[in-house]
Amino acid sequence: MTAGRMRLSDLPIRNDLRGRSPYGAPQIDAPVLLNTNENPYPPSEGLVADLAEAVRRDAATLNRYPDREVVALREDLADYLGHGLTAERVWAANGSNEVLQQILQAFGGPGRSAMGFEPSYSMHPIITTGAATRWISGAREDDFGLDPGKAVAAIEEHRPDIVFLTSPNNPTGTALPLEAIQWVVEAAPGMVVVDEAYFEFARTGTPSALTLLEDNPRLIVTRTMSKAFAMAGTRLGYLAADPAVIEALLLVRLPYHLSTLTQAAARVAVAHRGELLGTVDRLRAERDACVARLRGQGLSVADSDANFVLFGRFGDRRAVWEGLLEHGVLIREVGPPEWLRVSIGTADEMATFHQALTAVLPTADVIPAPGRPGRDDPQQPEEIA
Amino acid sequence: MTAGRMRLSDLPIRNDLRGRSPYGAPQIDAPVLLNTNENPYPPSEGLVADLAEAVRRDAATLNRYPDREVVALREDLADYLGHGLTAERVWAANGSNEVLQQILQAFGGPGRSAMGFEPSYSMHPIITTGAATRWISGAREDDFGLDPGKAVAAIEEHRPDIVFLTSPNNPTGTALPLEAIQWVVEAAPGMVVVDEAYFEFARTGTPSALTLLEDNPRLIVTRTMSKAFAMAGTRLGYLAADPAVIEALLLVRLPYHLSTLTQAAARVAVAHRGELLGTVDRLRAERDACVARLRGQGLSVADSDANFVLFGRFGDRRAVWEGLLEHGVLIREVGPPEWLRVSIGTADEMATFHQALTAVLPTADVIPAPGRPGRDDPQQPEEIA
Repeated sequence: MTAGRMRLSDLPIRNDLRGRSPYGAPQIDAPVLLNTNENPYPPSEGLVADLAEAVRRDAATLNRYPDREVVALREDLADYLGHGLTAERVWAANGSNEVLQQILQAFGGPGRSAMGFEPSYSMHPIITTGAATRWISGAREDDFGLDPGKAVAAIEEHRPDIVFLTSPNNPTGTALPLEAIQWVVEAAPGMVVVDEAYFEFARTGTPSALTLLEDNPRLIVTRTMSKAFAMAGTRLGYLAADPAVIEALLLVRLPYHLSTLTQAAARVAVAHRGELLGTVDRLRAERDACVARLRGQGLSVADSDANFVLFGRFGDRRAVWEGLLEHGVLIREVGPPEWLRVSIGTADEMATFHQALTAVLPTADVIPAPGRPGRDDPQQPEEIA
Repeated sequence: MTAGRMRLSDLPIRNDLRGRSPYGAPQIDAPVLLNTNENPYPPSEGLVADLAEAVRRDAATLNRYPDREVVALREDLADYLGHGLTAERVWAANGSNEVLQQILQAFGGPGRSAMGFEPSYSMHPIITTGAATRWISGAREDDFGLDPGKAVAAIEEHRPDIVFLTSPNNPTGTALPLEAIQWVVEAAPGMVVVDEAYFEFARTGTPSALTLLEDNPRLIVTRTMSKAFAMAGTRLGYLAADPAVIEALLLVRLPYHLSTLTQAAARVAVAHRGELLGTVDRLRAERDACVARLRGQGLSVADSDANFVLFGRFGDRRAVWEGLLEHGVLIREVGPPEWLRVSIGTADEMATFHQALTAVLPTADVIPAPGRPGRDDPQQPEEIA
């Protein structure tokens, strides 16, 4: 060993990792954090007490491995999801990231490919290449929606082993009509993953891809407790699919992947779903108000069915991002180059955000709205089919 | 979709997964469970109370993502490991399985290979192939030790990108002398992972590969809280290595991989290490007594520096395994074909095991001991260098 400090580039890491930076939003401390689409409402005292009690009960067996098959939690999640689902059609892991990684390990791998329609969740290509699977980048339309005909053509051209659809989409907020998902499922030669991490925030009447599961054994619908369930710290992602898909995932999951504490905490969360999901209505109202207000300021704003809003467009979005941070508001510089994403916080947090943005806008390099996607009139929950 | 139920083989899973069964010890309920090398001692009431209190405290922020870099826990673990380690040289994940998977993702992958010396931990080849890396099977000697000269020759022949050494080895219990590890580290062209999951159980004076870290930036030493720390249900594995290695792992780890609750529980466990590791002395004494007793019954018994004992040899080990289960004792049918592995339990559990085995032995197809590995005299803690 030389006297000097070892550098990462001196290590025999995989060639495709060379020069890369770790994924992740900058972890900057600011008074108002609207950057990672967290739910701003902390668990109630009652929920915390139940959680502590569940931990106290299950900690007595912490010297033993957890239930490897996660049966009780899968039953609870199936009950929550409805649609006639049962435990044998549900699977859970440490965050939807691990769920997605297991899907890639079972159905992707060397010589195989996965395709997504971008801009979309940036972890999809990262997890795909991390699982030694080739990433194929498809495109969304200017309004961040999907043209079913074009999507089918792209799938028929590339024949990907896995297709990712994100609905509502991150970072744009766009929900896909069921018809588009159906077209893709019918055209795809392999598995189709509909990432519904933000589904609970969708406007009333938006159908879930869960309604398509019965007839489509190659369809997988993923969900998370990080958003609507306000449990990002618990790291619990899950999915619903045909029982044979779950059997496939059992071949690649690391044994005992989900800890006793995670299983216990997630079960408590499902039991408190009334309270946890009760925040969703408030956040949807804040979101719709945010969309309307930003459009009222002449900005381009993507329709949103999620707990965040993509807005722009700015010739220099970094300047706007920094200006907001100077006012104590941290949002996310992500998505198409001229756009910014703000997570929906509490009413107070949103007031601070709007105040900060109003202060920053006069010096911002705003690109006029005519070319903006979405409808011209303010977003209304009643509008969606 | 056809009317019949979808079968796993109808799905487009990876070809190398076809026909496989999920990994894992059979989950059979029996009065005495000595099959998965768990620590039989549950956490104390004091520890459970502290754990519940930590969860109560941290649950208030469960709507937020956990610390992505796991800083406080890594500091605690570095302090526990000693050897002048600091947080920048320590990393943690959901069980050592996830630690190993991250190592494979950073330093293995398509076109690369990993090598182990078998019989050894069966997850090493499984995680290796799951990460699309070629597995090369090296061999241990008849006494389950490593001949350094032969190991070096095998490494020079195959030039693996990663070498796994397990010490103490699972399922044989064999600890490697530091010299053998040194030879391997010098010969290996890439990374060397010393899996020390069972290190705390090693006989007094057994040196840890941690002592070699300072001079070997390509060396990684992995540990777990599942065994000596009696925290299998918490799923916390960790490693020590050069800071550049940790930087490499940051490129492949799933963001926010370790939950708020896991981080909190593991910190409580480290704080209670005196109590938790206090069980280790009792288990070592039970183990040494078990080795002596089995040898006294004319059986072949591998020297053990772990919390389990490999014994045999049986012409029909399945019959012995089933005979023990009929007496309410579940052990593990694992390792070389004529051997069985028993985890060390409490004094009562070991008494039940010995009673059951004594009842089963008269009808067992025992292969006489002359060819047995290990020393002929009963295992003594003082014997190790």
